[in-house]
Amino acid sequence: MPDSLPPDSVGIVAPQTLHFNEPLALACGQTLKAFDLVVETYGQLNADASNAVLICHALSGHHHAAGYHRMDDRKPGWWDSCIGPGKPIDTNRFFVVSLNNLGGCNGSTGPSSINPDTDQCYGPDFPVVTVKDWVTSQAMLADRLGISCWAAVVGGSLGGMQALQWSLTYPDRLRHALVIASTPRLTAQNIAFNEVARKAITSDPEFHGGRYYDFDVIPRQGLMLARMVGHITYLSDASMGEKFGREMREQAYQFGYDAEFQVESYLRYQGERFSETFDANTYLLMTKALDYFDPAYEFNGNLARALSEARCEFLVLSFSTDWRFTPARSEELVNAMMAARCRVSYAEIDAPWGHDAFLIPTPRYTDIFTAYLDRVAREVRA
Amino acid sequence: MPDSLPPDSVGIVAPQTLHFNEPLALACGQTLKAFDLVVETYGQLNADASNAVLICHALSGHHHAAGYHRMDDRKPGWWDSCIGPGKPIDTNRFFVVSLNNLGGCNGSTGPSSINPDTDQCYGPDFPVVTVKDWVTSQAMLADRLGISCWAAVVGGSLGGMQALQWSLTYPDRLRHALVIASTPRLTAQNIAFNEVARKAITSDPEFHGGRYYDFDVIPRQGLMLARMVGHITYLSDASMGEKFGREMREQAYQFGYDAEFQVESYLRYQGERFSETFDANTYLLMTKALDYFDPAYEFNGNLARALSEARCEFLVLSFSTDWRFTPARSEELVNAMMAARCRVSYAEIDAPWGHDAFLIPTPRYTDIFTAYLDRVAREVRA
Repeated sequence: MPDSLPPDSVGIVAPQTLHFNEPLALACGQTLKAFDLVVETYGQLNADASNAVLICHALSGHHHAAGYHRMDDRKPGWWDSCIGPGKPIDTNRFFVVSLNNLGGCNGSTGPSSINPDTDQCYGPDFPVVTVKDWVTSQAMLADRLGISCWAAVVGGSLGGMQALQWSLTYPDRLRHALVIASTPRLTAQNIAFNEVARKAITSDPEFHGGRYYDFDVIPRQGLMLARMVGHITYLSDASMGEKFGREMREQAYQFGYDAEFQVESYLRYQGERFSETFDANTYLLMTKALDYFDPAYEFNGNLARALSEARCEFLVLSFSTDWRFTPARSEELVNAMMAARCRVSYAEIDAPWGHDAFLIPTPRYTDIFTAYLDRVAREVRA
Repeated sequence: MPDSLPPDSVGIVAPQTLHFNEPLALACGQTLKAFDLVVETYGQLNADASNAVLICHALSGHHHAAGYHRMDDRKPGWWDSCIGPGKPIDTNRFFVVSLNNLGGCNGSTGPSSINPDTDQCYGPDFPVVTVKDWVTSQAMLADRLGISCWAAVVGGSLGGMQALQWSLTYPDRLRHALVIASTPRLTAQNIAFNEVARKAITSDPEFHGGRYYDFDVIPRQGLMLARMVGHITYLSDASMGEKFGREMREQAYQFGYDAEFQVESYLRYQGERFSETFDANTYLLMTKALDYFDPAYEFNGNLARALSEARCEFLVLSFSTDWRFTPARSEELVNAMMAARCRVSYAEIDAPWGHDAFLIPTPRYTDIFTAYLDRVAREVRA
């Protein structure tokens, strides 16, 4: 809790809810008649609206990417390390827009919102939303904010997929896409982990086929398990070893089924905390969006052909110990970009923290991120 | 289903149950007054009982390692690829002993057995059993069979831990230990995956604190999830990709929460099948035995000092794509063996199948396994 806010913080910020009273046709065939998006912005939009940067969030992310909501907040927004005055995404130069995606559980319309047709929570009736759908809704948001072209669209993990999709769906509405710790499609192993998470949630008796809101319960155990599995895949074997090793909770082995090692208590705690704050149906939806993302799919698996429509420049970053979306997956993306004659910069950052490394500043990561966006900002001024 | 048995099969085999009416003091402090072990043997014990090989099984393994129980069995024993006439563990030369470990659910005394003190299933009252306890019980089995010294103790994964423990607990009762796809101790990540599996089982409402036998139910969903997570860690990302990729079940995306990709159905099927045949309390017990195994623990973390008591020769084998117990963990073991002045041969086998590779014959694996055990067999004859 900051007594006073750090000088490189965007400070106290307030989310706003934007209502869209326009139909949104989704990839699944359904249409949302209207929807809300919750948004935060940092910095000032310049006169010709050319300095706007869109932040796309990952599986459990939301609109609160930087700053504090209250002076007594324990923690700032989820990407505060990279967004602020003088930080890589420099709010002295950029107007930064961060939203909670459609289907989310932090204020944007999602499964836990009221379905106007029934006056009940959508629950399992909320349509499956894809990365492409998100990008469409984000373009509607850009229209609303008067932004015809983003200086950059930036995202890590599932957020990186959205940045990539922007370059394909709206090639003329962004100048740069920053695709960080991401992948052009999930592997079978990625899908398998998502399926375990979904199965954990849907087999929890408190799930009630997704209508748990009506029973005033949540599928706590299932969501907890889902998060525990997810959490393991976000960290590296090495970083878990560094953090916990085989450190025990008691001096000697207890020979029972309680948590014996610190890593067990840590995981349980993470799972429990998550299950109290995140909506289970949103978790299902986010994992499906991950599974379905595959821009090469419509091009017979040819990613370079999919990318031939892209007009923006790319920065692709991967992290050496990320085994969820390995550097090899980013290289696959870079190879396709090169084949499609795109301008692309690529770096594999040495970092021990696995997939989570994209949230943790390290010198080379920060330097490259900063330098690239400095160039983007200079173009804005030019 | 073989019409006739393959010529390199041990043929039709029958398990036998051996009753031990002697107390077994366990690491946890409890004592089992009596217990059963179910055993299969293949080949003939020679006159001086010097050609005996002990097979130690992994988490979900059992005594049925080779051959068939009935002519119409769909599959042979779990390590039939490596045990039989002319195979690496050559039953023309060795007397092979394979057992279901204490705490198992295939006939040896375990949580689903009747506790003579209560005339009810042990359930959660069955004591936590360690790798060391298993080795002690296996030594009692050796006594019963008249085997004072094994030609070799062989195991993969958790089985390799038992082979290693034999070299420490009974240095004069084995001439060779074959430690395959194993590790001298679990990492935090390994423990974390085990904890997810345990949490899935114990949070299933049908678990009833481990007394599900009394309710005539099983924690099916929990056990299924546990197996799904486990299964992912047994395979490599590459082999899952090779086998399933992003192959779908239908021609087009269904945009729902049913299994969309083949890998999802496969995992569900594996989980379901497993949950019908394996005991949940045994699963908990086996994962705890894995977690607790750490022979260096009593030596202040110094594995070489732990190994200084060993007298046998070692063969250590690892597999290139095994990310559960990586080659680095085997190298750690080999380094400690070298430091302890042990005789040790080591090979990292190039194989795409992850941890499961130890069950799948490949030329280099089979060649090294065969050559090493040929030397062991020659020593027997000498």
